Amino acid sequence: MSVIQPVLDRIDQNLDQSLERLFALLRIKSISTDPVFKADVREAAEWLVADLKTIGFEASVRDTTGHPMVVAHHEGPSPEAPHLLFYGHYDVQPVDPLELWHDDPFDPAVKELSPGRKVITGRGSSDDKGQLMLFVEACRAWKQVHGALPARITLLFEGEEESGSPSLKPFLKAHAAELKADFALVCDTGMWDAETPAISTGLRGLVGEEIVVKAADRDLHSGEFGGAAANPIRILAKVLADIHDEDGKVTIPGFYDGVEDTPSQILESWNGLGETAESFLGQVGLSIPSGEKGRSVLELTWARPTAEFNGIIGGYTGKGFKTVIASEASAKVSFRLVQKQNPDAVRAAFRDFVKARIPADCSVEFHPHGGSPAIQLSYDSPFLAKAKDALSDEWQKPAVMIAMGGSIPVVGDFQTFLGMESLLVGFGLSDDRIHSPNEKYELTSFHKGQRSWARILEALTR
Amino acid sequence: MSVIQPVLDRIDQNLDQSLERLFALLRIKSISTDPVFKADVREAAEWLVADLKTIGFEASVRDTTGHPMVVAHHEGPSPEAPHLLFYGHYDVQPVDPLELWHDDPFDPAVKELSPGRKVITGRGSSDDKGQLMLFVEACRAWKQVHGALPARITLLFEGEEESGSPSLKPFLKAHAAELKADFALVCDTGMWDAETPAISTGLRGLVGEEIVVKAADRDLHSGEFGGAAANPIRILAKVLADIHDEDGKVTIPGFYDGVEDTPSQILESWNGLGETAESFLGQVGLSIPSGEKGRSVLELTWARPTAEFNGIIGGYTGKGFKTVIASEASAKVSFRLVQKQNPDAVRAAFRDFVKARIPADCSVEFHPHGGSPAIQLSYDSPFLAKAKDALSDEWQKPAVMIAMGGSIPVVGDFQTFLGMESLLVGFGLSDDRIHSPNEKYELTSFHKGQRSWARILEALTR
Repeated sequence: MSVIQPVLDRIDQNLDQSLERLFALLRIKSISTDPVFKADVREAAEWLVADLKTIGFEASVRDTTGHPMVVAHHEGPSPEAPHLLFYGHYDVQPVDPLELWHDDPFDPAVKELSPGRKVITGRGSSDDKGQLMLFVEACRAWKQVHGALPARITLLFEGEEESGSPSLKPFLKAHAAELKADFALVCDTGMWDAETPAISTGLRGLVGEEIVVKAADRDLHSGEFGGAAANPIRILAKVLADIHDEDGKVTIPGFYDGVEDTPSQILESWNGLGETAESFLGQVGLSIPSGEKGRSVLELTWARPTAEFNGIIGGYTGKGFKTVIASEASAKVSFRLVQKQNPDAVRAAFRDFVKARIPADCSVEFHPHGGSPAIQLSYDSPFLAKAKDALSDEWQKPAVMIAMGGSIPVVGDFQTFLGMESLLVGFGLSDDRIHSPNEKYELTSFHKGQRSWARILEALTR
Repeated sequence: MSVIQPVLDRIDQNLDQSLERLFALLRIKSISTDPVFKADVREAAEWLVADLKTIGFEASVRDTTGHPMVVAHHEGPSPEAPHLLFYGHYDVQPVDPLELWHDDPFDPAVKELSPGRKVITGRGSSDDKGQLMLFVEACRAWKQVHGALPARITLLFEGEEESGSPSLKPFLKAHAAELKADFALVCDTGMWDAETPAISTGLRGLVGEEIVVKAADRDLHSGEFGGAAANPIRILAKVLADIHDEDGKVTIPGFYDGVEDTPSQILESWNGLGETAESFLGQVGLSIPSGEKGRSVLELTWARPTAEFNGIIGGYTGKGFKTVIASEASAKVSFRLVQKQNPDAVRAAFRDFVKARIPADCSVEFHPHGGSPAIQLSYDSPFLAKAKDALSDEWQKPAVMIAMGGSIPVVGDFQTFLGMESLLVGFGLSDDRIHSPNEKYELTSFHKGQRSWARILEALTR
């Protein structure tokens, strides 16, 4: 008799209740980057612990110097059974600008976008509460059907992923013995498209820096001082404008150290996916790639490093006009890293680049925000083939090997601190609007994602 | 018997009460640029009308499509007496960032900064409520002493000077017959230094533009789209950075059309004032002129045009970090104009300059904020010499002829719509922090400024 079929059937039967559970989690405003929501973040952790206990996990909220971790363990069929660590994060991005949301970001619902296509709306529905609950629900169904789980399973749910994961490294170091498993399952990734499952084998790294340019010791009247006094917005604009050349390349000396060309066979397989600048950028109302000239959008977002400006502010930004020369202006700048780029070296090179452009009577402050190298997973790992087959069975379409433009620092940390490889499988779509207003998650992803994880569990423990 | 001495004595006696009146006006939050304060702006107008009626002015609040004007008339000793129009504005700048104020900006007080040096603190104390009340108090004292005023006097107090004066031109046109006088007195200017009175003969013009660069139709995740999608902050930074060359010159084609070199004798007289880059910029913690190379700070701020960036905003600007690519970014840009520069031509050239730098799949919006040409008054006008002598008598030091970096559009409007020259006399100091936190006005300016206006009235009507 099939081990997996009754689990899949149970997942189907559980769907409505599993949605209710996800909604309860989505209603909690666990925005980690804004201290105002500190108590909400903890509430989400406590909610997860309570839910995991109902499945039989030994689960607890673990304090850190920042937001807490959730750690949960479940025994396997035997002490020699494979040990898997599943990672997700229960914190979410801020929701501003709130006025652009069609629905309350913290009052989730199922909406029918078009006949037969339903989505779950709300902040965190895709990134990452929805993805995280897939695995929890797969475990729940398995336990209900078989009274046990097929592997020793440890869950690690983080509450600081959207704010640079300051506590993650120390926590992994301090609890390495507890958390070390045969390998990790990481769910914070996406499908190729709504019908095609994917496994991610490459992830870009990230360096974040906030810079504050300071000029006069007070705000000045531009009539009185304009033409004589340094303007920090002008200095900042020059710094930012200098970072890219006419061909979209980053000009910071040493920035491309450690960047190798992607193998041609990989590029060819990506070209075979049929994505074009028009199809990729057309989703968001654009058409012209803004990165390095002569490369495809998939190469640009999956395998090339970038410098992005994530925020800028200075001077008078209210209604109307104020003829002021501000005393300071600031920008949030981030770099996506690939291959062997060193985050510390990139940060140092950027700071030198900025300092060289600050007039002698002005100053600049730097505030670091996270740093992680890129990850390149091997194409021939033993569990990759099994997972690929399990996904292909569920979706009735071959799973594809892709890369990801975003960073998932935990994958590098698992490698560094726990000596553990990761399998990256997720069911997000590129139009899920993660980090933006009107985030959603496909109901199909939520349903077939649970079934996919059950199949992967079965394949890995067969 | 002296006509003027008893008026000066009465001003001295009235000082405490005149301060109380100024404080009452300063307490009204008449911020014209922010619609939240609409009722406060009107309250200030009504306060002025009530006060002017106590002096015998026929005064009224006059509605416009924006904030109201205050117009008041007082008869002279005879229908043939000179007719003077005095202009000031009763609106004030916004007060943000509020946390940088040492005292409540709307709870004025007299503070002793150092032994013998007292200042009036509060938003509008210098710009322009304090300056405006000087003339009102001079009239009050004159009326109290002589039972009449020495000239026919019309007062025009505007409530939209800090928000681009949208109603001024239509109001002047509609009421030209009522407002036309022999010449205008305009008080929105400054002294050379705390001991040296000044008359301003040159004023820079102003063009304000807000630009909004739009890229994707939503905010994007920089991991997912970074390297491919246009970033409006990057586009905006490039636009702004391109506006100045390495020597501080503005690069917009045609920008310097109509700009003539200042006569060498004028430049020499300015050099004789002893201002240096160190002394001028040292007041605000700077030392290196940021404008066109090879020109003095006085020439840069009095006689050269500029491009300034008054505000910029885009993307995530809250605490922490958000790896977002914004859908739009905006900047408030202003140009100070000199001599014969045409505001409309500068605005059009700027727009062309910006449009040429917007990628084909992005767009830009422009929002105009005021425009006025520069003013250059003649050095040999008949009333200039009289006012100079009156000021020199009061301050016991020769008044100097200076220029001003800021614009006072009303001076041009008086010329255009009423065919009337202006005399620009004021008692602000360069460290008054107008438009900035901790605005103040010297108590000496408030006292001797009243006496100065009484002396000027006497000199002009002798």
